[in-house]
Parts: sequence; C-alpha cells; structure tokens
Amino acid sequence: MFKGNCVIAQSGGPTAVINNSLAGAIEAAYRSEAIGEIYGARNGIMGILAENFIDLRREDASTIQGLRFTPGAALGSCRYQLKKKKDYNKLLAVFRKFNIRYFFYIGGNDSMDTAHKVNQLAQEEGYELRVIGIPKTIDNDLPLTDHCPGYGSAAKYLATIVLEMGIDIKSIVTSTKVAIVEAMGRNTGWLAAATALARRAPGEAPHLIYLPEVAFDLETFMTDVEKAYRQYGTVLVVVSEGLVDKNGNYIFNDTATVDVFGHQRLGGVGQFLLNKIEAELKIKGRVILPATSQRSAMHLASRTDAEEAYNVGRVAVEEALRGASGHMVAIKRLKGEEYRCTYELVKLDEVANREKKVPRAWINEAGNDVTMDFINYARPLIQGEVNIPYHNGLPAYVNLAQYPVFSK
Amino acid sequence: MFKGNCVIAQSGGPTAVINNSLAGAIEAAYRSEAIGEIYGARNGIMGILAENFIDLRREDASTIQGLRFTPGAALGSCRYQLKKKKDYNKLLAVFRKFNIRYFFYIGGNDSMDTAHKVNQLAQEEGYELRVIGIPKTIDNDLPLTDHCPGYGSAAKYLATIVLEMGIDIKSIVTSTKVAIVEAMGRNTGWLAAATALARRAPGEAPHLIYLPEVAFDLETFMTDVEKAYRQYGTVLVVVSEGLVDKNGNYIFNDTATVDVFGHQRLGGVGQFLLNKIEAELKIKGRVILPATSQRSAMHLASRTDAEEAYNVGRVAVEEALRGASGHMVAIKRLKGEEYRCTYELVKLDEVANREKKVPRAWINEAGNDVTMDFINYARPLIQGEVNIPYHNGLPAYVNLAQYPVFSK
Repeated sequence: MFKGNCVIAQSGGPTAVINNSLAGAIEAAYRSEAIGEIYGARNGIMGILAENFIDLRREDASTIQGLRFTPGAALGSCRYQLKKKKDYNKLLAVFRKFNIRYFFYIGGNDSMDTAHKVNQLAQEEGYELRVIGIPKTIDNDLPLTDHCPGYGSAAKYLATIVLEMGIDIKSIVTSTKVAIVEAMGRNTGWLAAATALARRAPGEAPHLIYLPEVAFDLETFMTDVEKAYRQYGTVLVVVSEGLVDKNGNYIFNDTATVDVFGHQRLGGVGQFLLNKIEAELKIKGRVILPATSQRSAMHLASRTDAEEAYNVGRVAVEEALRGASGHMVAIKRLKGEEYRCTYELVKLDEVANREKKVPRAWINEAGNDVTMDFINYARPLIQGEVNIPYHNGLPAYVNLAQYPVFSK
Repeated sequence: MFKGNCVIAQSGGPTAVINNSLAGAIEAAYRSEAIGEIYGARNGIMGILAENFIDLRREDASTIQGLRFTPGAALGSCRYQLKKKKDYNKLLAVFRKFNIRYFFYIGGNDSMDTAHKVNQLAQEEGYELRVIGIPKTIDNDLPLTDHCPGYGSAAKYLATIVLEMGIDIKSIVTSTKVAIVEAMGRNTGWLAAATALARRAPGEAPHLIYLPEVAFDLETFMTDVEKAYRQYGTVLVVVSEGLVDKNGNYIFNDTATVDVFGHQRLGGVGQFLLNKIEAELKIKGRVILPATSQRSAMHLASRTDAEEAYNVGRVAVEEALRGASGHMVAIKRLKGEEYRCTYELVKLDEVANREKKVPRAWINEAGNDVTMDFINYARPLIQGEVNIPYHNGLPAYVNLAQYPVFSK
C-alpha cells in the first residue's frame, strides 16, 4: 500500500457533470486507507502552484452528494499553460511539501498534456507520484475514449432546445423563417451533430447541420438554405462555432484573440451567416446562441452521462491505488444491441493535444447532415434524466464549504 | 342555453404553456351541451379567413392531455393584422357559414384588439357571437391582469439558465469575464427582471439587470460594468432586447424592419454592448442569446404557470357559456401570505393595444437591478415543475392529428 496525500483539480471549461467526476474521486478516496489528506486545488493547476488547497475530508457527505447535481467546477477551474520547467518544478516542490502522492486532474486535451508532463518530471526526479487524468469536455474531442463525460448532457440539452424551438418556430407561420443555432464544440462537430437527435420524423428540425469536419462553402450553404426554405417553409439550421473553409480558415472570427493555449477565440459564425441569408435571400431570420448554457444546463443533464462522469472519477482513484500512473480513464463501449460500457486506461501522452473529429462516414455526402451511424452512436449517451431537487422554483445547487488548508 | 359551434385560435408568438390554454378550452367545451362542433383554426385568424379548420372533437383524449406538456402553438399561429372592414366582414361570413357562436382567441395585445373588433362588428351586424380572449405572452405586458400565462415558465427557464451560467462562469477564473444575456420581452423588462430570482446571495449572478423601463445611458452602463468587474471578477449582465435611451430610441436595432403591426424588430443589443465593453474596458466577454428557447422551453416550465394557463382557457369557455362576450380572462392575485389567485373578466377594449410596464418602484434607483417588491411578485409564478414524459432521452411532445373540417 503506497501511502500519501492526494490532490484533485478541475481544469478548462466546466461541464454540467464535471462535479460528478469530483464526487466519484472523493468518495473512492474516502474508502481508501492509503490516501491520507484529500485536497482540492482551487482553480486548477493555479491553485497547486499557489498552494491554495481546500480540505475535502471536512466537507459534509450531503454536499459531496450534492455535487452530483451541481454544474460549474466546484473547486474552481482555470485555463493556464504551465511555463516550461519553472512551473513544473514549482508544482513538484508543492507536491513534496504536502506529501502529495496522488494527483487527479479532471480536464480536456490541454490538461492531459499537463498531467503527462507532471508525471514525466516526477519520474525523472525520482519522486513517486501517481497521476491519472479524468476526461471531461462537452466538445467530445478526446481521442482513445468512445466519448467524453460532459458530452451526453450538453448533447441532450442542445437537442431538447432544438426540438422545442423547432416545434415553436414551425407553429408560427408568419414570423421567423430561418433560425440559426450556433453550437459550441471548437474544431469538432460532435455537439452540432447531436441536434440531429431532435428530429423525430423526416422534414422536422434541424433541417441542416454543418460541422467543421467538412469544408464549408458559402455558396452551397445558401443554396441548401433556399432549397430547404422552399421545401419546409421554416428552416432551422445548426452550425458549429468552428466552421472552416476549404483552406482551413475559420468562416468567421471577430478578433485575432487567442487564449493562453494559442486557441483562436470562436463565436459569431451564426450571425455572420444569417446576415448573408437576409441580405441575399431576403429571408427573415434569427440567431440562437445558447453559448455557455450548453456546458452548465445541469437541469437537463443525461443520467447516463452523469453516472459515467462519476465512474471515471471513481475508477481514476481505484486505478491509481492499484499502481497506475500516466494514464487517463477512457470509456469503452461494449459490443452488442444494448448500450453498455466499461472503463480502461489509456496513456496520457497518446491523448494529449490530439483532437478526435466526427468521422467523415458519419456525415452525409452533401455535408449538411449526419448519418444513422452517428445517431446510433449518440442516442445512448443522452438517455435518462437526473433528479434535481428544487427549492423555491429553482434547482437547489450546492456549494462546497471550502475549508482552507494551511501549510504546516 | 345558447347553442352553436365554437372555434379556438392561437395567435402571435407561442409560449411553453399556450397549449395548456387550448386544452383547458377544449375540455370545458367537451363538457358543455351548448357547444356543438369544436373547431380549431389553423394558424390563427388566417385559418378562419381561409376556412381552414380542424375538428377537435376527433382528437384522442390522450393527445389533448399531451397538449399540457407540449410547447409551440399546436393549432399553428400567425402574426396577421386584419385589414379594416373587408377582413372583418369575411370573418363574420365564415362564422355565419359554420354557425360559429363562440370564439376563443388565445393571444397577446394585438390579438385582444382583433377579438374586440370582431365582437363589436358582430354586435353591429346583429349576429349573436360570444368572444372571449385568453391571455398568453412571455412578455407579461398585458394590462388588467396580475400576470400573463406563459410568463412564469419563461421566467423560470431564464432564471435557471442564468443561475447555471452564473455558477459556471464564476468557476473558471481565467476565461470569460463579462457575460451578457439578452432577454426577450419587447418594450417591457419583465423577463429580464425575472433573472434576479436566480440570485441566492448578494454578489451572485446576475450582477446587473437593465430594463426598457429606465432610460439607458451607455456611460453609466460602462461604469456599472467596470465597477462590478472590479468587485466580483466576473460579471453577468442581463439586458432586455428593447432597451431605449432617454429619447425613447432603441439602443440598438440592426434594421428598420417592422412587422405587420408596425412593431420594430428587436435583438442584437447584447452584442452591441459587449463590443463596447471589449473595445473600451478591454474586458473579454461573451453574449448568450437564448432567443426563442425562452418561449418554448417546456422541459422547464413552471407548474403554477401551466395550471393557470389551463384555467384561463377553461374559464374562458365557462364564462362564454354563462353569457359573457367582449372580455378577456384575467388573473387576480388574492391578498395574503400564501400565493393564491382567481380569475375574472376584464373588457377587451381596455386590454387591447396597451402595454403594462414594470413599475418604476420595482426597479432600484440606479436602474440596474430590481427590488424585493418585484422578487415577491415574481417568485410565486415560477413554482413547481411540470412532469414531462421522456422517450429515448428527449421529451415526448405530442402532435394533434388535425382532422380537417370540410364545409357542408
């Protein structure tokens, strides 16, 4: 039994179920005799660098349970790129100081890269440390895992509001003719694609779906919209925020702003395309920009997703206790009629900084819809609802008490 | 007993619970021996002019029950302004032809004006007709009623996603610093104001709320945002789509487009203000545009609202059967600690074409938040959830079979 303290951190954009992973990790750590203190790092890796920890052993069990239906990153999160060497050395120094021997990092692509580098450095320095990555991203773009915790809930919410808006817009014949929903997902179309789940019969919304996986051509788009308008009278179009042209350039981005990881800031392509439609086709329209509600709408999370998010957190701790390090917990879908999955470990360096795209074969030839293969992939991920307690008409989300840890 | 057929129509923008009013009216009509055929007009008043009716007696009882959890206007709706005299005469001719003696019109301000004029003309022509308006609008801007069916559900949904986005955005310290949520509501701030319900403690989102009831000043706004940013680190701002300056001009509108009623098209003020903030304050931000999801999010409707919507439909039919005409069913809040309401009739011509604004006393002096009086008014309206059946991970909304009526 390898004894020591553990730290859990959350990184990047939250998901509706990111705290399920936190709860899964905490509860597995509670059950272990090897793990001493259970620290939460405030605001991801920044909290570790700043020795800004909270004591997760002191939280009420009911609060930890409450994490299972509370959105946002309960520990706080950040987007912070570690500077080569100096930051990593500081990180390791903090781990030594607090006798941290287990590091669980809940995050996406960039975070898996950070976790990988921390693991490498500890090995080089001969500091025994077990590092396990816990996947989360609504974008669903991590490789080597069937899907990512967070995606199913964002997909369920987005598909539901598209279903509802589709019914609404179709029912009022003299108003909005074109509705453009701009989905998140960065450079992948998983989220936009999921809105196809809302279509209960041919001809229903969404009528057109565009993903970054297929080079976007404005002229073809205009023809598609006009044709759908003539056919259906009302057209609901879903576009990914990260649409690119055949040269790989974003169709629209308002600024040259990049974040700390050098990722370009996205958003605005929906309005850009609507302006074109209104100007050229003279059809009146409206943009719907659910934005961050896609990653926070816990009130309509997928139970399947919430449970899987809990499990990847739990499995991360269990596998670290068995000796694993330098891995991420991945979800593996089992073959068979009924949807079932299991968890396995994949190497962090094989996950880090890679994006998984929607396979071209799951997109129709015209590049404006998905195929049944995608539907069959995505449908199981949105099944079930999470039972949220309501107080005074609104979800009764919890807050961690956040007892600070003082260094000895 | 005054015998004859009845027609029910839906008008204007749908609400999440507009079909509750339809169900209430249909079920009350079923119970009456005075009402023969129960027609639904397809697409509002346009369906009456075109003699485009469906036979609501032939619908399954389970479908009518399903209307109680299905968004969109199940009969179809429209925005159509009757042309003086010619259209009204045609309307009356259709009523005569189909022996329609009861007319129930589910709609907002403009629809109440139409209903009033139809009622007047029938009286002038000596055609016995009973006309009752059934209120619906997420904007909550009808006068002489405590509130409007549809508002509570839109308020609950909007407050919930603001609560969730507030938790989300606050939890990631290095990303979006300013989030602007653009609320619907046309020239009134009822919907934007409702997001204040999301604030569980001082300092929580929404930090600033701007309504059209107070003249908007860009300079004051920028000062407010900067101050809140310094105080809280992350600022969630809610703005009404219809913000106006001290001269009554919209702060932003992209085109000179007006609809058939001469109402100016709104939307875009959120992005306009964010651009100003980014340019002048150099703070990074994001716009959230829930748009039509505010009126269609049945998945998070208020049970109180859904029940009241059903009741105004039911009461409309019951009152017409008792002899009333030229009235709208209004909701009257009873005095007392506990929220209770009753229904009463108000005259259509006193409702028509008037807008009820948020009282100035319910907005704080600075004009960037609401007071407890507003909270106490709005809180009861979002209470309770509607039990929605789910199928395959998505709400199982129903469709009317829509059996057409052929003229004899």
